Amino acid sequence: MSEPEHLDTVRKFVAQEVLGRETHLDSLADAPLALYERFAETGLMNWWVPEEHGGLGLGLEDSVRIVSELAYGDAGVAFTLFLPILTTSMVSWYGSAELKEKLLDPLVAHRGFCATLGSEHEAGSELAKISTVVRRDGEGLVLDGTKAFSTSTDFAQFLVVIARSAENPTRYLAVAVERDAPGLRIDKRWDVIGLRASATYQVSFSDCHVPAGNALDGHGLRLLEIGLNASRILIAATALGVARRIRDLCMEYAKTKSLKGAPLVNDAVFAGRLGQFEMQIEVMANQCLAAARTYDATAARPDAARTLLRQGAQKSALTAKMFCGQTAWQIASTASEMFGGIGYTHDVPIGKLLRDVRHASIIEGGDDVLRDLVFHRFVVPTAKRT
Amino acid sequence: MSEPEHLDTVRKFVAQEVLGRETHLDSLADAPLALYERFAETGLMNWWVPEEHGGLGLGLEDSVRIVSELAYGDAGVAFTLFLPILTTSMVSWYGSAELKEKLLDPLVAHRGFCATLGSEHEAGSELAKISTVVRRDGEGLVLDGTKAFSTSTDFAQFLVVIARSAENPTRYLAVAVERDAPGLRIDKRWDVIGLRASATYQVSFSDCHVPAGNALDGHGLRLLEIGLNASRILIAATALGVARRIRDLCMEYAKTKSLKGAPLVNDAVFAGRLGQFEMQIEVMANQCLAAARTYDATAARPDAARTLLRQGAQKSALTAKMFCGQTAWQIASTASEMFGGIGYTHDVPIGKLLRDVRHASIIEGGDDVLRDLVFHRFVVPTAKRT
Amino acid sequence: MSEPEHLDTVRKFVAQEVLGRETHLDSLADAPLALYERFAETGLMNWWVPEEHGGLGLGLEDSVRIVSELAYGDAGVAFTLFLPILTTSMVSWYGSAELKEKLLDPLVAHRGFCATLGSEHEAGSELAKISTVVRRDGEGLVLDGTKAFSTSTDFAQFLVVIARSAENPTRYLAVAVERDAPGLRIDKRWDVIGLRASATYQVSFSDCHVPAGNALDGHGLRLLEIGLNASRILIAATALGVARRIRDLCMEYAKTKSLKGAPLVNDAVFAGRLGQFEMQIEVMANQCLAAARTYDATAARPDAARTLLRQGAQKSALTAKMFCGQTAWQIASTASEMFGGIGYTHDVPIGKLLRDVRHASIIEGGDDVLRDLVFHRFVVPTAKRT
Amino acid sequence: MSEPEHLDTVRKFVAQEVLGRETHLDSLADAPLALYERFAETGLMNWWVPEEHGGLGLGLEDSVRIVSELAYGDAGVAFTLFLPILTTSMVSWYGSAELKEKLLDPLVAHRGFCATLGSEHEAGSELAKISTVVRRDGEGLVLDGTKAFSTSTDFAQFLVVIARSAENPTRYLAVAVERDAPGLRIDKRWDVIGLRASATYQVSFSDCHVPAGNALDGHGLRLLEIGLNASRILIAATALGVARRIRDLCMEYAKTKSLKGAPLVNDAVFAGRLGQFEMQIEVMANQCLAAARTYDATAARPDAARTLLRQGAQKSALTAKMFCGQTAWQIASTASEMFGGIGYTHDVPIGKLLRDVRHASIIEGGDDVLRDLVFHRFVVPTAKRT
Repeated sequence: MSEPEHLDTVRKFVAQEVLGRETHLDSLADAPLALYERFAETGLMNWWVPEEHGGLGLGLEDSVRIVSELAYGDAGVAFTLFLPILTTSMVSWYGSAELKEKLLDPLVAHRGFCATLGSEHEAGSELAKISTVVRRDGEGLVLDGTKAFSTSTDFAQFLVVIARSAENPTRYLAVAVERDAPGLRIDKRWDVIGLRASATYQVSFSDCHVPAGNALDGHGLRLLEIGLNASRILIAATALGVARRIRDLCMEYAKTKSLKGAPLVNDAVFAGRLGQFEMQIEVMANQCLAAARTYDATAARPDAARTLLRQGAQKSALTAKMFCGQTAWQIASTASEMFGGIGYTHDVPIGKLLRDVRHASIIEGGDDVLRDLVFHRFVVPTAKRT
Repeated sequence: MSEPEHLDTVRKFVAQEVLGRETHLDSLADAPLALYERFAETGLMNWWVPEEHGGLGLGLEDSVRIVSELAYGDAGVAFTLFLPILTTSMVSWYGSAELKEKLLDPLVAHRGFCATLGSEHEAGSELAKISTVVRRDGEGLVLDGTKAFSTSTDFAQFLVVIARSAENPTRYLAVAVERDAPGLRIDKRWDVIGLRASATYQVSFSDCHVPAGNALDGHGLRLLEIGLNASRILIAATALGVARRIRDLCMEYAKTKSLKGAPLVNDAVFAGRLGQFEMQIEVMANQCLAAARTYDATAARPDAARTLLRQGAQKSALTAKMFCGQTAWQIASTASEMFGGIGYTHDVPIGKLLRDVRHASIIEGGDDVLRDLVFHRFVVPTAKRT
Repeated sequence: MSEPEHLDTVRKFVAQEVLGRETHLDSLADAPLALYERFAETGLMNWWVPEEHGGLGLGLEDSVRIVSELAYGDAGVAFTLFLPILTTSMVSWYGSAELKEKLLDPLVAHRGFCATLGSEHEAGSELAKISTVVRRDGEGLVLDGTKAFSTSTDFAQFLVVIARSAENPTRYLAVAVERDAPGLRIDKRWDVIGLRASATYQVSFSDCHVPAGNALDGHGLRLLEIGLNASRILIAATALGVARRIRDLCMEYAKTKSLKGAPLVNDAVFAGRLGQFEMQIEVMANQCLAAARTYDATAARPDAARTLLRQGAQKSALTAKMFCGQTAWQIASTASEMFGGIGYTHDVPIGKLLRDVRHASIIEGGDDVLRDLVFHRFVVPTAKRT
Repeated sequence: MSEPEHLDTVRKFVAQEVLGRETHLDSLADAPLALYERFAETGLMNWWVPEEHGGLGLGLEDSVRIVSELAYGDAGVAFTLFLPILTTSMVSWYGSAELKEKLLDPLVAHRGFCATLGSEHEAGSELAKISTVVRRDGEGLVLDGTKAFSTSTDFAQFLVVIARSAENPTRYLAVAVERDAPGLRIDKRWDVIGLRASATYQVSFSDCHVPAGNALDGHGLRLLEIGLNASRILIAATALGVARRIRDLCMEYAKTKSLKGAPLVNDAVFAGRLGQFEMQIEVMANQCLAAARTYDATAARPDAARTLLRQGAQKSALTAKMFCGQTAWQIASTASEMFGGIGYTHDVPIGKLLRDVRHASIIEGGDDVLRDLVFHRFVVPTAKRT
């Protein structure tokens, strides 16, 4: 399957299954939505999983393009479909051969989902404060605790849980748990303000036993940081897709609407706004692609796993998410004033797009957290400044 | 009733009937909400109607304070309760003595609502393009056409409709219509993105007869412009109330949340944000009050009706709405990132506040329309610059 | 002299002595500029000094209007002319009757300047860290130390110096010093980036003796905070005046410049920008006036001196300075793009206006400092929130 | 010479000849500054000229890196050194073989400058309105008219002038003129607000004869548009270099300055600002590089000249300039408040950096002009949207 073919498939999927179904996608309908089945039928489910596990092995540059197209249709759909990359990338790099075979091959075969469980109520931006613990018990590991936000968990095949070691509270582990593990309970599904085609849960573990081989190799918080590189870039690509949708929505509206006797599209103020949007969209795209290329270059190294342990959070992934989140919000804010009274109703999807795109500056690290991280990792050490 | 007494009553009403009921108020429940009955019981319904019609005759400066308190609770509640001022002020200044007695006295007596119908689908910001027509028919007037957005119409006692004269298409009338007039039809209620405690309708007139005395005296578009002076200032006050609520919500959150081992309230970034909010809130309040005092000063003139016909849109009303709408949106945008993941759920009302406050830059003239108006009325004529 | 007469005088002075002389005013010419002599001839010098000392006793509301007019001409001229109010207000409220007679009467009689010396190199935003000390020596006081920034000191008649007590390092004094006091040395004049019609100095004291009666009554840092109330409001008024000038400059330019075959003044983008400027200017004016009225109301109290000691920094003075500084900077930034290539030369004064207005967010407390102050004084204590 | 070697040379030049000489560079000293001689000695003068003319033939991606380093030192120096690319690229693609040999070989040999003359007083953003005319006269061409802004012309070896055909006013030519051509007069040097290490002139032509072979091949306005692709990207790179300098200046300052008893570098507000700057700098760099790669890819095509005639303005060049200009201005604005009172003096170069970087949003098309261009070229034609 060549690159344009993929994108073509994705665009067709979006045109047929997503566009025009805003009301349904925004309704917090039962999860998972049936349309994920139909996406699976395209053969693109988990498109990034390495070929050795039966996947397509597409890189992050391709993923940026795919996610931008999906998010053009619906950000919640995009989020649901790419988020497993956070989980699979940790497993791919830091799981044993057996674990990878046990988890990734069936994931691809069943076109399923997987999930990561990191943040807790008292540990949102500061994961070192998590209280979910994992302890040794003979040959196995036992998990106890509650995870606040985890997307797709209920219908995932497996999850990776970040937990603190009961034996050594300064140590953190990343442990794979199969969905049907006893002691795993879905507490509730969150009523979110956007991305409502996705499903995010609070999940508890109570004396939940897993084999010792389910632990990934390395410091749990570091592995999570590494896993977030891909998903942060793809959150940025989601913001890009929403921004492109908003631009096109404005253009459609401006063709039908008149101002001072001429189509709105002839108005200089409108032209200036859309010229600015287009500029911002191009910059967003270039930043997403640059971050993706850096990611792909590291991933292509034979010592990728080790290199990533040393590097941790990828700078361009952080900046892509920050920039695209901020910029798409500006675009959505401006656009939300451009549709007149009708834009304050659900007859135009701008209200939904505004809520959807807000996630990009909140999820996987709010901007305050990321600014602080960028400062301490990349500004203070002079050598790392660009 | 002294000023502080009023405000006290309003604050109690908000505390008892509004705060903590965000889910209900945001649900687009059947209109009108029962809590408007309870507001009526406070004796403050339509608090601005002149004493000669049985009202309290409070001025706009008081109204700003009342509306800010109401909107602190819920912007949709505030909007519903103050919006009749747009209608009653047109009737007070430009209705005949008989019409005023017929409409305003029962409005006060029954603690009811009234509504104004101006904008149409093809005539949002440019009301001169409206196609609703009014024609003479013997002793009476007949209305035909469709009005896109009108709040509270279904449960109003009477409405004022802006229509084009069938006899002279360059003439516009403002015509009072009682709610039970035959030929008036509620087409639908809009599913709005915010202010969901209010109810906005599309309304049609088909061969709808009213007595000739129901026409107000003066150019319909000009009367509407005059009526909007009060409601624009009170939209600004609504934005002020929402901004105050957001600030307090942030402070409550920051007391419970810790960052780097200290309460968030000790964080310098948080302090800077809230210091900026407080500054903006004070400026918003001063602008609302300045606009209200200008309004009250004009209204107190014996020749107020004539003066207003000459002045039309009040500059400080336009600027109050623009400024408070823009500023409250900035505050809401910033704050919507400050609650972490929980802020992306309905467990915290910030998502609702964001949607609610958006109306202030859209309804009764988007900012592009108002900037254009301010420019042509108050910048181009050198004498009117401040 | 009635209020309109004052303003008329000021406008004439600006038209005759200031407008069109940007190159000279921006040249860091020898201080004081000769035009201050000509301002003195209008009889308005130190217009706020109480009548009992021979002054006009104008209030701060009048001062806002006067300063806005002066700054319309040149911000450095405005700054030089109003800044003595910081010094005289401390002396008026906290000086002994003898001291007032000794300092204020001649100041008025000679139409002179006075200055305040607060900040030091290691104590810019945190004045409690100042190292200038004052010690008792028999009947007198002796000052030693260096003050970083003090405007007009070289040609002032007297100054007020904030110093730490040598006997008790937690105590601070405000001490009046006559210009010709031995031991007072002007180290240098600063080469500033804007306000270049004013003159700011670094000043040293070395074994500088003054009579004990020159000390004002009260905690030196608190007195300075009180003195800053007036000057912060007038810095805000300066920003307002510059913003008004920029607006008018844009309008003049737009009448001569064509775009797409029509005068620029017909362009919708230009109209929108100027409509926004006008809105912002009105809000700035209302905030300045509201702050000034609060100031005047306190000043009119018989117990003003005591009340002010209790209140310290006036909230609306802080917010006026923050808001007007930020807003005028936005206006200047936007406008600085509106003149094409000529706007990048000194043929148009926009570059000077940009540099001049920058001071409003830096001098007498940068915005970070003021946000922090507003937060801790007026947001944290619930009772003080607006 | 390998890429890192070039950059090393440039960094050394900047360290030795530029940094710390802000006062001199900002003084509008006689042009050209002696330091351009010293840059010429590095062998890098006109680094982009093709090897066939004796140049180094470096591409635009290298140029972005070189210019960012130069502008880190001084934006006016950077501007002066890269601006000839606008002229030489027009000559390279659209000059005859003879003309190229006549102009480019000596330019490289003498390490000289060249200049382009486009804008006029009545034709800044709308070049189609230029009134400089070129007419045929026997074997030659004759130029008459005045060009408003042209950098380095006085000391250039040759210039390219955009002129309207006297014979056909809808036709425009780009004509090379040697500096010593009779009839060419330097009217004046502009007193600019920034980039003061460069020299920009108003230039007149009066019966100025040149050989017919000096005309480039193609529509003059189109050729200029094509030439601007490179210089717009390099203006963006200049803004990037200034932004990097500002970041480092803030870091230096923050190490020496204390706040609340700790170094400013530990302050959370400071950290957040610098984290945001670093993010913006990375995005600026990626956008410049993406635009440069697109440029280089087109330039590498055998049919580059023809392709460019068809394409005209390169979208990513326009967006790079817009984005980097806007972003660097934001950074400079924010930073200009971060140095306290000393930042309002010339003891810290932030005031100069602010003035310097302002050019990026004004020169070679203000943002309003570019937004309009992007809208009409790349948004309205659906196929060209990203």
